[in-house]
Amino acid sequence: MLPPAFATPDVPPLPAALLDELTNLLGSRLSLAASVREHHGQDISALDPMPPQAVAFVNHLDEIIAVQQACHRHRVPIIPYGSGSSLEGWVHALHGGVCIDLSSMNQILEIRVDDMDATVQPGVTRKQLNAALHGTGLFFPIDPGADASLGGMAATRASGTNAVRYGTMRENVLALNAVLADGRVLQAGGRARKSSSGYDLTHLLVGSGGTLATVAELTVKLHPIPEAICAAICNFPSVDQAVRTVIQAIQLGVPIARIELIDALTVRALNAYSKTQLNEAPGLFFELHGSQSSVKEQVETIRLLADEHGGQDFEWAVHPEDRSRLWQARHDGYFAALALRPGCRALTTDAVVPISRLAECIEATAADLREQELLAPIFGHVGDGNFHAVILVDPDSPDELQRAEAVAQRLAQRAIAMQGSCTGEHGVGLTKQGFMGLEHGQHAMDAMAAIKAALDPRQLMNPGKIFPRGPVAN
Amino acid sequence: MLPPAFATPDVPPLPAALLDELTNLLGSRLSLAASVREHHGQDISALDPMPPQAVAFVNHLDEIIAVQQACHRHRVPIIPYGSGSSLEGWVHALHGGVCIDLSSMNQILEIRVDDMDATVQPGVTRKQLNAALHGTGLFFPIDPGADASLGGMAATRASGTNAVRYGTMRENVLALNAVLADGRVLQAGGRARKSSSGYDLTHLLVGSGGTLATVAELTVKLHPIPEAICAAICNFPSVDQAVRTVIQAIQLGVPIARIELIDALTVRALNAYSKTQLNEAPGLFFELHGSQSSVKEQVETIRLLADEHGGQDFEWAVHPEDRSRLWQARHDGYFAALALRPGCRALTTDAVVPISRLAECIEATAADLREQELLAPIFGHVGDGNFHAVILVDPDSPDELQRAEAVAQRLAQRAIAMQGSCTGEHGVGLTKQGFMGLEHGQHAMDAMAAIKAALDPRQLMNPGKIFPRGPVAN
Repeated sequence: MLPPAFATPDVPPLPAALLDELTNLLGSRLSLAASVREHHGQDISALDPMPPQAVAFVNHLDEIIAVQQACHRHRVPIIPYGSGSSLEGWVHALHGGVCIDLSSMNQILEIRVDDMDATVQPGVTRKQLNAALHGTGLFFPIDPGADASLGGMAATRASGTNAVRYGTMRENVLALNAVLADGRVLQAGGRARKSSSGYDLTHLLVGSGGTLATVAELTVKLHPIPEAICAAICNFPSVDQAVRTVIQAIQLGVPIARIELIDALTVRALNAYSKTQLNEAPGLFFELHGSQSSVKEQVETIRLLADEHGGQDFEWAVHPEDRSRLWQARHDGYFAALALRPGCRALTTDAVVPISRLAECIEATAADLREQELLAPIFGHVGDGNFHAVILVDPDSPDELQRAEAVAQRLAQRAIAMQGSCTGEHGVGLTKQGFMGLEHGQHAMDAMAAIKAALDPRQLMNPGKIFPRGPVAN
Repeated sequence: MLPPAFATPDVPPLPAALLDELTNLLGSRLSLAASVREHHGQDISALDPMPPQAVAFVNHLDEIIAVQQACHRHRVPIIPYGSGSSLEGWVHALHGGVCIDLSSMNQILEIRVDDMDATVQPGVTRKQLNAALHGTGLFFPIDPGADASLGGMAATRASGTNAVRYGTMRENVLALNAVLADGRVLQAGGRARKSSSGYDLTHLLVGSGGTLATVAELTVKLHPIPEAICAAICNFPSVDQAVRTVIQAIQLGVPIARIELIDALTVRALNAYSKTQLNEAPGLFFELHGSQSSVKEQVETIRLLADEHGGQDFEWAVHPEDRSRLWQARHDGYFAALALRPGCRALTTDAVVPISRLAECIEATAADLREQELLAPIFGHVGDGNFHAVILVDPDSPDELQRAEAVAQRLAQRAIAMQGSCTGEHGVGLTKQGFMGLEHGQHAMDAMAAIKAALDPRQLMNPGKIFPRGPVAN
């Protein structure tokens, strides 16, 4: 399922001198094995793998520096790798090169309860950090589906279900150390909660997907675990009614922690997969955080607003196990979708629009899918205006794949026309490059390319990503 | 009071051809008058003015482009100017050049209530925007002391008293259009609440202080006006006790909207200036936002925590007029400080540290001030770890000025050593350049300089700012 535009060009073999250097440095932690390379040349998308030429398993900052210096000297591409759980082809070795696997750099270096921040190595995963926070009264909120590494989440500017309240990686990375292609270590940001000191290198690196530097350490914000949490689901006569409920709740200042929309087809998939008995109608999953009385009040407001918009069949869950059961259904969404059509593969979209246009965008997309006779449950982070259509395609049908890609393309264009973005949380990687010019305009793309050239003049960091017809290494 | 290091180098007169072009374009809106130039060569700091060679009053984006294209062709510096209310020498024409006054570009282009955002021209001030929001149920929270222009606030990454709840300009600018030195218009960001699409040019421009581009239009987030607001003051036996109260409140998840610390000397100044009868002890000003019952609950929590730390003499204010009276005293802080010593000028510091180090940083600074026999009320945004010492100096005493500058220098170094920053909200401008290397390290400074060179290769945009021994134009 890799579009032909991304066929690997002829890549020369790695220089023997480079292999010698890296072997001297890492010993058996430099792998040339086909299975290891193949594993590191793919993410969890449906894209066919494009293996790197070698995988360097590093344990220390000094090893990242040494590997990159060697690659830089030999003008060989460098691809940082966290947990491989990204989408959109971020780790595909389009131009060959050396993959730097950071998963062993997984130490939690410091947790500072008073300052509500933590400094971690890039291979620490979000669940690992939350386990380490046990007993502090704090948590790290950002939850993409997978148990992703924090370095990778910073690189892709990841988010998840509670960005509406707690922000994305953009809002939650305070500082990071990153290794430029030539081995220089860039220190970006600091631990102060705000600063006006110079250019914002932190935000430049967050979301740059390894195309500027390798994240070697990061400091993230932590948040207080709320005293009370209440979850709920309910359904609505239409997507529009559900979205209007959310808009009004946000305008009233209800500090909703999570607010997820599922369409009727997703409900059908969940009922089959998770044995739920939900009404086959568009639904909202809520989660409300706060003190006991504040959550009670939020519940009342939400209920009132939902009533006004035809919301019904409310199911509330206050106890942790009930909440987990409820949210498990939502988290099953992707697999429930896949199970709707055994043997299929999924093409997942990631459009985001201003919330006032969300219902319209979803409805136009659903109509397009119907017209193309494609099965695609839709769910998403309605508080952010971000939703995913999981388009189920027969991997053996080029025609179906083509129709699915055309729908995804029209959706990206539709989102951009509504002043939104082609990608809310997955990033550009390989697959969204075609929309970059349309979304940002030529001058912004030129500025991004100029910044890339300024920080990585040999174009070695994760080449072929983000930029249309991405810069070619060597 | 301009340090000799910033003495204007010899600046050649503006080329006659450039003056002809600009006059043809703007007519009487190009001013060479000494008074106009002097006015545009200073901010509200105590720095002596450094006038630009001409001031261009522009009305349209097209005029910004045309002025910059002409300056670019003649290699003449360009200095964007909003309301002149910045500190730290942002608008001083260190290398001469043309000042672009954007204050007439003050149209509010669109307010979108459902999406809670507004698109404005750069000369719109924060009070003007809030007046226009009347009746929408929304407000724009960021409140530096002055009624600054939003373009200038974006350029300096400004904040104010409620950043602890609502963020700074960093968190509140969604998108902007900015004119590069050569006249190309960069479109950065979009109206989606989140996006992972390419490099984050918005955050690169926010805080760049006109050294990369001129902000020509911006889209900012708006927030719901809370149903209930309650303000309070109380005092504490020590700064440490006050800060510990704030740390615990934040850790408990109390969504404090404003939390301002004043030291005993500031209280004395306020009592004299604003005719208040506050105890001469460190104090906290609070403001709590939420629903009626949530605010009530926040009040109780704060009260409990303050009690534990010796907080006393609580004065609560719920009615708008009582709140205004209370906050007026806090807002009078700067002028009350100046009134402590008639005829003095103020050297204002802007350090920010992780909140766990705040009390220690303030106490070390207060000790240094006492040792140097300098009078300097201290107040600040304790929720962010940011505070200002207003050092009152006799403008006719070089010795006193030197001592004050040495204290400010030690404070910046102390803040950086505590993993904080030399500037929380004023920016680097001219006066904080000396600390940039220490705070960011050489590699980060090199990266910033490389980005500057990539986007402004002729080094024409606001030259001499941010970078130590700033790049010289021409």
